[in-house]
Amino acid sequence: MITLASDFGTPYPAAMKGVILARSDARLVDVAHDFPRQDVRTAAFWLREVLPYFPPAVHLAVVDPGVGTDRAALVVRAGEHALVGPDNGLLLPVARRLAGENGEMRVFDYAYEDPDSATFHGRDVFAPATAEVHDVGVDAVETLDAVSPAAEFVDYEFPKPELRDDDATGEVLVVDDFGNAITNLPGALLDGRDEGAVNDERVPVGGSFAAVDTGERLLTVGSHGHVELAVNRGRGDDAFDVGVGDEIRLRFDG
Amino acid sequence: MITLASDFGTPYPAAMKGVILARSDARLVDVAHDFPRQDVRTAAFWLREVLPYFPPAVHLAVVDPGVGTDRAALVVRAGEHALVGPDNGLLLPVARRLAGENGEMRVFDYAYEDPDSATFHGRDVFAPATAEVHDVGVDAVETLDAVSPAAEFVDYEFPKPELRDDDATGEVLVVDDFGNAITNLPGALLDGRDEGAVNDERVPVGGSFAAVDTGERLLTVGSHGHVELAVNRGRGDDAFDVGVGDEIRLRFDG
Amino acid sequence: MITLASDFGTPYPAAMKGVILARSDARLVDVAHDFPRQDVRTAAFWLREVLPYFPPAVHLAVVDPGVGTDRAALVVRAGEHALVGPDNGLLLPVARRLAGENGEMRVFDYAYEDPDSATFHGRDVFAPATAEVHDVGVDAVETLDAVSPAAEFVDYEFPKPELRDDDATGEVLVVDDFGNAITNLPGALLDGRDEGAVNDERVPVGGSFAAVDTGERLLTVGSHGHVELAVNRGRGDDAFDVGVGDEIRLRFDG
Repeated sequence: MITLASDFGTPYPAAMKGVILARSDARLVDVAHDFPRQDVRTAAFWLREVLPYFPPAVHLAVVDPGVGTDRAALVVRAGEHALVGPDNGLLLPVARRLAGENGEMRVFDYAYEDPDSATFHGRDVFAPATAEVHDVGVDAVETLDAVSPAAEFVDYEFPKPELRDDDATGEVLVVDDFGNAITNLPGALLDGRDEGAVNDERVPVGGSFAAVDTGERLLTVGSHGHVELAVNRGRGDDAFDVGVGDEIRLRFDG
Repeated sequence: MITLASDFGTPYPAAMKGVILARSDARLVDVAHDFPRQDVRTAAFWLREVLPYFPPAVHLAVVDPGVGTDRAALVVRAGEHALVGPDNGLLLPVARRLAGENGEMRVFDYAYEDPDSATFHGRDVFAPATAEVHDVGVDAVETLDAVSPAAEFVDYEFPKPELRDDDATGEVLVVDDFGNAITNLPGALLDGRDEGAVNDERVPVGGSFAAVDTGERLLTVGSHGHVELAVNRGRGDDAFDVGVGDEIRLRFDG
Repeated sequence: MITLASDFGTPYPAAMKGVILARSDARLVDVAHDFPRQDVRTAAFWLREVLPYFPPAVHLAVVDPGVGTDRAALVVRAGEHALVGPDNGLLLPVARRLAGENGEMRVFDYAYEDPDSATFHGRDVFAPATAEVHDVGVDAVETLDAVSPAAEFVDYEFPKPELRDDDATGEVLVVDDFGNAITNLPGALLDGRDEGAVNDERVPVGGSFAAVDTGERLLTVGSHGHVELAVNRGRGDDAFDVGVGDEIRLRFDG
């Protein structure tokens, strides 16, 4: 199985699929092709949250502002999965999660020749590499000629929250399509709480969106286990006036 | 075969696919994941119009404003198909159509434990249930431990038009991506007509969009067999100034 | 394998898939369903650029402003591929490319009876035809009862640029989702150039978007081998103030 994710919109992903299907009979599953353009961090977040639900697979992921420069191409083995994409940090958060507790992760360079066009490595470099990795098998990735251990690579870690007694400071990691502002604050902070103060404004804690009236704000534990700033049937980002990267102070009384 | 439909946008549907594929080798087909947010009625319409074209399958459908409340999860057997989704009326119009003339429809509760997050039952409740229903087979749904006949459930029926001689009153059920305003008025009303009066304005009847000039309004029988208010190469909803739920009076002379 | 492309948005393509899957166990791959509405030329461009990456397949493509009129339905054999769609020029540019150097292309009429609804031939005419073509096989297309050699058909060729010494005039063929304005000027014009004048304004030539600073304009060879007017991490169409069909004069000094 091969999954595909990118910020390409359409119809560029179809060219990648054609290239893969001309080389492999792998099953293809789209993850998303509408990641915010050239926003490596947001894509890294979604990959980390979504790919671990898949059975062992090869995952092609391309959000690549440096396409055509000398940035490397990577193949990452992580547990029973492999990831293929640009060397810009995109693959590392999900790789660590897929590697699991044993931390079985290995990062490889994938050597390639510059294609005629420097603007679509998704089609000309990463798609053929993905087919190659799929067909040799995750366990045998290092036997490929183009693959060699990466001496160095770009890593990325999401910012960590500061947790204190009854008080925490984090930030908005991403805003989802519904407008939920997903923070880096762990959902456990809300355990047993009826309300909390977000940047000094009191907001009820709800076990579900419908715990408050339509249009009302709430704090809830989102599907990724993080604290989310949300609105029942509305957009949390608007109602809390927050966006990606904004600091969130969360305080509880007693 | 499993079809998937939701109002989740991206990349949430991919998490549902991962969960299913980790449990089943079913073929997956996306119906739509951009249904209008939390609009059960519009989604129910599209499911009813689209799913009957599929061969026997298990259909996962999630538009679920009550996620995380005590609303039940349903499995519906309808003819050779099964449907899985929330108990809010979403599944019933299509189920009646899939059941066909014999009306072979049975509604079951699907018992589940509350997952850690209350906000993504699509991934944590409905996707595993769908895999389970698919793997046991539509004919054996009632053998699943989690499945029991539903004592009651939320039903939904689309509003019915009032049909009189040369005169009918209905409403706009949905507006499609093209801007066609699809009413609940049966297309047969237009048989043999050259024009009709929509809310007292005369409009030509056309067998196809191109029956009128570009930018001109027409009444036509849409692909669902309903009267549609349309514009050749334009948006009917704008040109007729109508939206979902608006009353439509259709009158014919002689 | 069957690929699907249209300007239908959602959920109409799912009805086509249902129709095909009820008749065939072909593998389905979406190319795009968000082509600009009823814009045959843009869709023809993308089909020509994307479908040649696929292994031999049957390609269903529907952008069809004349749906319900007496325009014919076509099946085109091109090399090891077949194309199915309306007779409006949509299929011809890609067919010529798929036919390859030997030019093995044959255009057939596909005879059909008018379905009840005149507005969704994608579902009622082209999808069943595609399943039929797939199941008989590309090599045996002409054995189908509904298929006969087309005495005439609508052709389409993209406008050709005028190439002179150090000077060329072309036009913008399409603007992609990123805002890159893709012209009909051959990329080879940029070979060995550091800059060029676009409509008399000097612009650097870059091997990749990142060859210029963020927000800066550049000329580059896009992934289709054409000259593109682009901006690093921005929209070329806005920065150059150009749209589809606009004339582009490209001049080089020395």
